[in-house]
Amino acid sequence: MINRTDFQVNVVPSLAMLAEIVTIGDELCRGEVVDTNSSFMASELWDMGITCTWMTSCRDDRADMIQAFRTALRRASAVLVSGGLGPTEDDLTVDVLAEAAGVGVTTDPGALERLKARFAKAGYALTPNNLRQVRVPEGAVVFPNPKGLAPGFELRLGDAVVLAMPGVPRELTAIWAQSVAPRLAELAAGGEKIAKRTFRVFGLAEAHIDHKLAGLSSLADHATVHYQVAFPETLVKLVVRDRDAEAAAQKLAMLERELRMRLGQAVYGEGGDSLPSVLGRALHERGESVVVAESCTGGMLGSILTEVPGSSRYFHGGWITYTNEAKLRELGVREDTLRHHGAVSEQCTSEMARGARERAGSTYAVAISGIAGPGGGTPEKPVGTVHVAMAGPGSLRHKHYVFPGERDQVRRLACYWAMAMILREVTQ
Amino acid sequence: MINRTDFQVNVVPSLAMLAEIVTIGDELCRGEVVDTNSSFMASELWDMGITCTWMTSCRDDRADMIQAFRTALRRASAVLVSGGLGPTEDDLTVDVLAEAAGVGVTTDPGALERLKARFAKAGYALTPNNLRQVRVPEGAVVFPNPKGLAPGFELRLGDAVVLAMPGVPRELTAIWAQSVAPRLAELAAGGEKIAKRTFRVFGLAEAHIDHKLAGLSSLADHATVHYQVAFPETLVKLVVRDRDAEAAAQKLAMLERELRMRLGQAVYGEGGDSLPSVLGRALHERGESVVVAESCTGGMLGSILTEVPGSSRYFHGGWITYTNEAKLRELGVREDTLRHHGAVSEQCTSEMARGARERAGSTYAVAISGIAGPGGGTPEKPVGTVHVAMAGPGSLRHKHYVFPGERDQVRRLACYWAMAMILREVTQ
Repeated sequence: MINRTDFQVNVVPSLAMLAEIVTIGDELCRGEVVDTNSSFMASELWDMGITCTWMTSCRDDRADMIQAFRTALRRASAVLVSGGLGPTEDDLTVDVLAEAAGVGVTTDPGALERLKARFAKAGYALTPNNLRQVRVPEGAVVFPNPKGLAPGFELRLGDAVVLAMPGVPRELTAIWAQSVAPRLAELAAGGEKIAKRTFRVFGLAEAHIDHKLAGLSSLADHATVHYQVAFPETLVKLVVRDRDAEAAAQKLAMLERELRMRLGQAVYGEGGDSLPSVLGRALHERGESVVVAESCTGGMLGSILTEVPGSSRYFHGGWITYTNEAKLRELGVREDTLRHHGAVSEQCTSEMARGARERAGSTYAVAISGIAGPGGGTPEKPVGTVHVAMAGPGSLRHKHYVFPGERDQVRRLACYWAMAMILREVTQ
Repeated sequence: MINRTDFQVNVVPSLAMLAEIVTIGDELCRGEVVDTNSSFMASELWDMGITCTWMTSCRDDRADMIQAFRTALRRASAVLVSGGLGPTEDDLTVDVLAEAAGVGVTTDPGALERLKARFAKAGYALTPNNLRQVRVPEGAVVFPNPKGLAPGFELRLGDAVVLAMPGVPRELTAIWAQSVAPRLAELAAGGEKIAKRTFRVFGLAEAHIDHKLAGLSSLADHATVHYQVAFPETLVKLVVRDRDAEAAAQKLAMLERELRMRLGQAVYGEGGDSLPSVLGRALHERGESVVVAESCTGGMLGSILTEVPGSSRYFHGGWITYTNEAKLRELGVREDTLRHHGAVSEQCTSEMARGARERAGSTYAVAISGIAGPGGGTPEKPVGTVHVAMAGPGSLRHKHYVFPGERDQVRRLACYWAMAMILREVTQ
């Protein structure tokens, strides 16, 4: 039995609410999986103006879990817990937290219902272990799990709250969006509303973005600008807090106009957009199509374009012309071009793009040829040299880059700049 | 001044050494980056038979860092620290640890030398801040940084040791491999030597692998089997400890033979191998070549094959025939085939593979066509249905799969099974 006084909470008096993250699992402490839940939750907390001070991972060990919860509850007023809610005997989160709160354990009827339905549908027999994962501490507020079986829950311990979720990332993020985020906003803001939007930026380094956005957050009260690197893009988040939701939204809209003015075309999308999805939407809306002619990227551009469901409506395929011979045979690049300029040249990529467009009969064709490294560089064409050319109705564009970084980065940058080139052409 | 008694260490008497990981940085607690250092270190510790019990992240805050170190040193006999060794004022690790040890701070001559050389080469002027990152606590054992400027170091605190490294992952892993891992092996084993090897397994689920390897570790003393998921592969590590290095190596060799017998062809490589690199080596050794004909994977297979530097020696490119029209026009698939069997069929992929091989004049051609989802499934051909066909000298192979998972998983599985098919054919 845990002494309840161990869980006495000492809330630091501060305008900003303090939170901690505790992730539980032997697999974490053995390094079998990377803990992406902690960074996800920390980023969400940061957006909400909640200060995350500690992130702790421990094993599926009763004594260690008690110590982790006790320490976190002493320092923070909200403790986010991930893991230990599964069906096996070493999933102890429910039991340890119930004990800490001095309450029993009960089965959540809603989660039990869903569990039974799922097993009936699959024709499996329910075992006692399966029932473990629909248990919650008595008196807990249950958060339904839209993507799995074990529900999350909120439990008050002294002056602090514990918000527990299963460790499977897609279940955790689903419960977070549906229940935990709204609840935290309530707890943190004391009535303050949060308006936020994420902008996807490509083609400007973070330092440049930061420079261009200098002073932006001071244009409105309680506004902040957050960055997140998602190579080769940068995510810029605007967050505004206000007691009045309408006022927060208005301030956000004002800041968004300013941000878009300052960053221009580098802002290609918002929220869940991606460069291939935005490009795809632009092509589809216009009834246009694209094909690719790839050398050093070896199919990566086609692969990225087809990450988007439904991409067959505008992506018509292409050629991976990794050899000179394929460039000649498939795309009609001239031998003279290869002889005088080489495969990594404006001339070659322009001929690749023109040849691909003609052969496929598509609206656009984009061609990439470069030296991805680590070998193959020369003083004139160092590793990272990439040529990108695009053929469209009556247009032929070309750009020459020398990208920094290793093979994978060079190839990825080439694909992103190629997509940006077509997007600019399509939407101009 | 920190009271030194705060750092009194209470080593738990145990055969297995206990270690903790502390990662430091505001960017971690704001969720701007995912902490991959912790899982890397935890996995390495696990291989060494060192039990990692806690992983803690805190901000660049003096009081929090003191608390983190104090807590970790009370529980563990080795504390691995990442972060807080950079050039800025909020990089506090050196100062806080020196204070804890009751020693001053000094500049490491070797690191200073490298710093000066680097700046001279780039033509930059050294600022006092730059000099911050070559400081270490007095009396610390310095670990040179092969990939950056800030060195790592070891500092004894009471009965425990702190091993500190910069937070940049490629610097941390380099210092780890060169200095920290050997030092930990020394500390942990008390003279025991570790022999380990990682095997790369594709085509068997982890549960199946586990079943086939049941009892393996009991064939030798102090042997363990560890798993790590690297979708769509599984990494299986064999670890053997012995006072005698030769004996450890012999036991490992015996276990390896047994493992290879039990898992057969599913073990395609070791250590830093990858399926495209192993396939590439096999093709290159035989002077053979491959081309691809991709539909639902949209270029992903070509992209994976060309991740390997030097892949142009055996990868000759291919076609991304995302539309039916491209399959007809580029690869000579017959209209009848599409009409009667559809694009996702044995007939279509076989014709794609044959057409690609003939057109490119390569030794092998592999074709993929499937329904990656989320849309496009039918009762006869549900989402996840993928056909893979391969044409080689006098051979034509085909397989039909129904893969589980979402779009990206289906596509990735298709590429891996396609590579496995060619590898088997090439090496048979």
